[in-house]
Amino acid sequence: MFPSFTSFEEIADNYRAIFFDAFGVLKNSERVFEGVPQLMLALQDAGKEIFVVTNDSSKSPSRLAQAYVHPDRGPVVKSDRVISSGLLARDFLAHKVRKGWVAYLGTEASAYYIEAAGLSPVPVSELREEHAPKALVLLDDEGFDWFADINKAVNWVRRYNTPVVIANADLEYPKKDAEVGIAIGGVGKLMEHLLRKTFIRFGKPDPMMFSFAFRQLMHEHPDYSLRDVLMVGDTLETDIRGANAFGVDTALVLSGNTSAEQFEVAIRASGIIPDFVCESILT
Amino acid sequence: MFPSFTSFEEIADNYRAIFFDAFGVLKNSERVFEGVPQLMLALQDAGKEIFVVTNDSSKSPSRLAQAYVHPDRGPVVKSDRVISSGLLARDFLAHKVRKGWVAYLGTEASAYYIEAAGLSPVPVSELREEHAPKALVLLDDEGFDWFADINKAVNWVRRYNTPVVIANADLEYPKKDAEVGIAIGGVGKLMEHLLRKTFIRFGKPDPMMFSFAFRQLMHEHPDYSLRDVLMVGDTLETDIRGANAFGVDTALVLSGNTSAEQFEVAIRASGIIPDFVCESILT
Amino acid sequence: MFPSFTSFEEIADNYRAIFFDAFGVLKNSERVFEGVPQLMLALQDAGKEIFVVTNDSSKSPSRLAQAYVHPDRGPVVKSDRVISSGLLARDFLAHKVRKGWVAYLGTEASAYYIEAAGLSPVPVSELREEHAPKALVLLDDEGFDWFADINKAVNWVRRYNTPVVIANADLEYPKKDAEVGIAIGGVGKLMEHLLRKTFIRFGKPDPMMFSFAFRQLMHEHPDYSLRDVLMVGDTLETDIRGANAFGVDTALVLSGNTSAEQFEVAIRASGIIPDFVCESILT
Amino acid sequence: MFPSFTSFEEIADNYRAIFFDAFGVLKNSERVFEGVPQLMLALQDAGKEIFVVTNDSSKSPSRLAQAYVHPDRGPVVKSDRVISSGLLARDFLAHKVRKGWVAYLGTEASAYYIEAAGLSPVPVSELREEHAPKALVLLDDEGFDWFADINKAVNWVRRYNTPVVIANADLEYPKKDAEVGIAIGGVGKLMEHLLRKTFIRFGKPDPMMFSFAFRQLMHEHPDYSLRDVLMVGDTLETDIRGANAFGVDTALVLSGNTSAEQFEVAIRASGIIPDFVCESILT
Repeated sequence: MFPSFTSFEEIADNYRAIFFDAFGVLKNSERVFEGVPQLMLALQDAGKEIFVVTNDSSKSPSRLAQAYVHPDRGPVVKSDRVISSGLLARDFLAHKVRKGWVAYLGTEASAYYIEAAGLSPVPVSELREEHAPKALVLLDDEGFDWFADINKAVNWVRRYNTPVVIANADLEYPKKDAEVGIAIGGVGKLMEHLLRKTFIRFGKPDPMMFSFAFRQLMHEHPDYSLRDVLMVGDTLETDIRGANAFGVDTALVLSGNTSAEQFEVAIRASGIIPDFVCESILT
Repeated sequence: MFPSFTSFEEIADNYRAIFFDAFGVLKNSERVFEGVPQLMLALQDAGKEIFVVTNDSSKSPSRLAQAYVHPDRGPVVKSDRVISSGLLARDFLAHKVRKGWVAYLGTEASAYYIEAAGLSPVPVSELREEHAPKALVLLDDEGFDWFADINKAVNWVRRYNTPVVIANADLEYPKKDAEVGIAIGGVGKLMEHLLRKTFIRFGKPDPMMFSFAFRQLMHEHPDYSLRDVLMVGDTLETDIRGANAFGVDTALVLSGNTSAEQFEVAIRASGIIPDFVCESILT
Repeated sequence: MFPSFTSFEEIADNYRAIFFDAFGVLKNSERVFEGVPQLMLALQDAGKEIFVVTNDSSKSPSRLAQAYVHPDRGPVVKSDRVISSGLLARDFLAHKVRKGWVAYLGTEASAYYIEAAGLSPVPVSELREEHAPKALVLLDDEGFDWFADINKAVNWVRRYNTPVVIANADLEYPKKDAEVGIAIGGVGKLMEHLLRKTFIRFGKPDPMMFSFAFRQLMHEHPDYSLRDVLMVGDTLETDIRGANAFGVDTALVLSGNTSAEQFEVAIRASGIIPDFVCESILT
Repeated sequence: MFPSFTSFEEIADNYRAIFFDAFGVLKNSERVFEGVPQLMLALQDAGKEIFVVTNDSSKSPSRLAQAYVHPDRGPVVKSDRVISSGLLARDFLAHKVRKGWVAYLGTEASAYYIEAAGLSPVPVSELREEHAPKALVLLDDEGFDWFADINKAVNWVRRYNTPVVIANADLEYPKKDAEVGIAIGGVGKLMEHLLRKTFIRFGKPDPMMFSFAFRQLMHEHPDYSLRDVLMVGDTLETDIRGANAFGVDTALVLSGNTSAEQFEVAIRASGIIPDFVCESILT
């Protein structure tokens, strides 16, 4: 069960479907890595199904898909191949809430996931008693005033016991120059701690993310099995842990959160063991 | 989203499939509640699919199913309708480990889940370096010497970084006279704490448990949707939280872990809100 | 060890020194409760020593003391009887840092505790590499831009491994109308979680707070023992837990965080048992 | 604030009092390190006060002191210079419980700390309702049946809400060949987790341990200040964190829990920064 160090090309050859994490694998916070659209096309031309499995709920899947464009051949990922944790939140809201107002912390673009569930989004800053919101959804770390709105949200939940959904389980996300940004999942942790509650949390490492993508894959290829799928990620705690638990093979890449210097220590310390390790998907 | 207090019979009428937790709903640690086999038959006679969704990995599903017997009509639950967290552990081992020795804490009967994955179980007490186990699985709180074997297991994982799988996420289980037993998931917590690792953990509230049962249901009834399913449980933190997150309707019963005196406080404190509350499934 | 319900007057009679928590006992976030300065004078006139033991590090002890004023007889608490958690932070900085810049999150008034240690405070917003700060101190939840400065502080500690001191261990503080404010200790929890570190944390329930006050008491009254001291607080988790562990008698009042409806449940749930319970110090 | 690598002899020269951790500094689980009694004598001959500050509550201070014997000059540490966390537990029991039965998990020798508080110890295995114990104290990991007695203790606290005291905050202790033993503090963590309570916990890193030793020092040398004291320990999380927070200088030795290979990583990861690092106290 110990990982072998190989080129991504060689590994990919053995799978019929590849799930990619986005940040640190395909892109950073500024742009898609050079060569990625070409690689995505090549994999698809070789008959492989590719999915992007991401905790990014800042925009709709179709807007997330727009990032991956080939200079000559245009968009290379279809919207339905982008599985964001926001989709699980959307389904939860659609099944469990059904109608009415839903409050949120995030940008306007992130409120897509509330609207897509047939519900009416209201930002926490504008929330009033008349809304009687059915749920509060944490979508993105931007688009609101942290001091005012986090305090308001905490007091709202204390008073009305409104269910809270975290649509992005990540604590942080990589920015440029080795900096990180506090993700909305981190803000959620603070709120959980203050309220002594555990919210409903969607996103990797929850295996449901991979189950969602796999169901979509099975829909088109009912003969595929877990053995046909490789998950590629840069983070042991989310990508590799979750895909290991779901039961598919995993490849750790060193182009994001986990560096070449630290990956062996990190694997040993965490006990989360990928099947493969590659420098990046481009080498 | 606030629960209404109703009779189980009335609620059940609106669903085509019912998932039951075992302990506190269908049985206690000593025996199946009186009237339960009759109710299970009646539901099936009325055309409903019933599943038992349990974190009990102390025996195989077929042995767990043997508990539910009607005095005249014999066994009332088929083995493939008992979804134990051990099955997810079994699939994980089958997909990720494939062959060799797997160490375990638990009774001999619980080792079934290792054998069912095509692997060779060895109890921690007999574990030697030559086994070079591919994983350690925590299956049951009985069948081993706590002091000797938990200490041995902790040191083994420290030295060899063996992956650890908890096949039963529960911290405790109800016994008679309002006593509890420390479940193997509680022992796992202690080991995680000492080793500063988070193990791979199977069982409710992980929505994968419900996904597993739902896939089985879909296999026979491809036209059923999440809306057709009701999960019935006695524990907010596992049964109701997990099924809420999976997106099916939920009924809390007050015949087990959650008492009539405390359920309102518990719902308010946890923020975990079932769709219905019933005294028991028999009233 | 179970609490008896009594009037504060009766209890106080048996002690030579009384330690009071501030928020919820003597005052709320807006003003000192009516009758409190009179009571403080009466206790002192009866020969009792009184101390205010508070996690409030938003201002210096002398400015905190200014809140307690009798209409006729003026200020009723001397500065050296106000023991704030900031004083422990001040001593820590004085002993362990000695000189140079110290960054902080909080208001300008809260930076008192850095200056009092003979060090130079710089707000996180103005922090530059040239400062090479010896420590970062979390002092107050106001006086800075949460989004910008918490993110900046997290990245600073990630990069430079600067020691972090939380000068107020509280997660939240009571505001009017049963609302709470997120305290700087709550912000510290978020930062600890993101950085996977445990910061140096001063304030109740740490028994050092009571030890600090007791040392001051012993200085003037070397013959007093722990048996002579009563701690009065409104919060089981901080006031009562800490004073119990320090070994002095404790009285819970129901005029703040803990309500008359919930105190029995809260004691049972937490296992933190005060020696006495009073409605307030004024009844 | 970054540690310099020096010989212990050189460092010790600058202090008038030295506090030593026991395990990993002066001894291992089998015996006192060769040369330690000689060093202790030499330090005392040079006019320095030495204390042993330990979380070991398995025996009384006088029995712990017996371990340090010079071949020619006999015992080298007086009983009152051994500060064990059990002493804080003893004082707590004496002040807060006063009389009656106190249940315990541990060996008979560890029950010393209950008797020294003037109370009557009863092992959990023999505990009956008639005892109506005032507290449960976790003293040592040996001397009881883990499965039977931990389960019994958990159910006892659930039913009677008996206050629980952990007299040794350590999660684990070093044994030979790089193995560890699960300490009673680890067992306490499991019980806290199951019962959703936080017990009263004595021992390093709680600064009260150092405060206790310092008070004893001040008794004989009222002119000494924190600046005169050096704490020497092998564990960042307990010895160094606690003494840093108490405000005395700290030296990390690499003869126990922290190895020469990992100490830099461990300091960076934890943010716990000793003033000095030495290979051992003997080099």
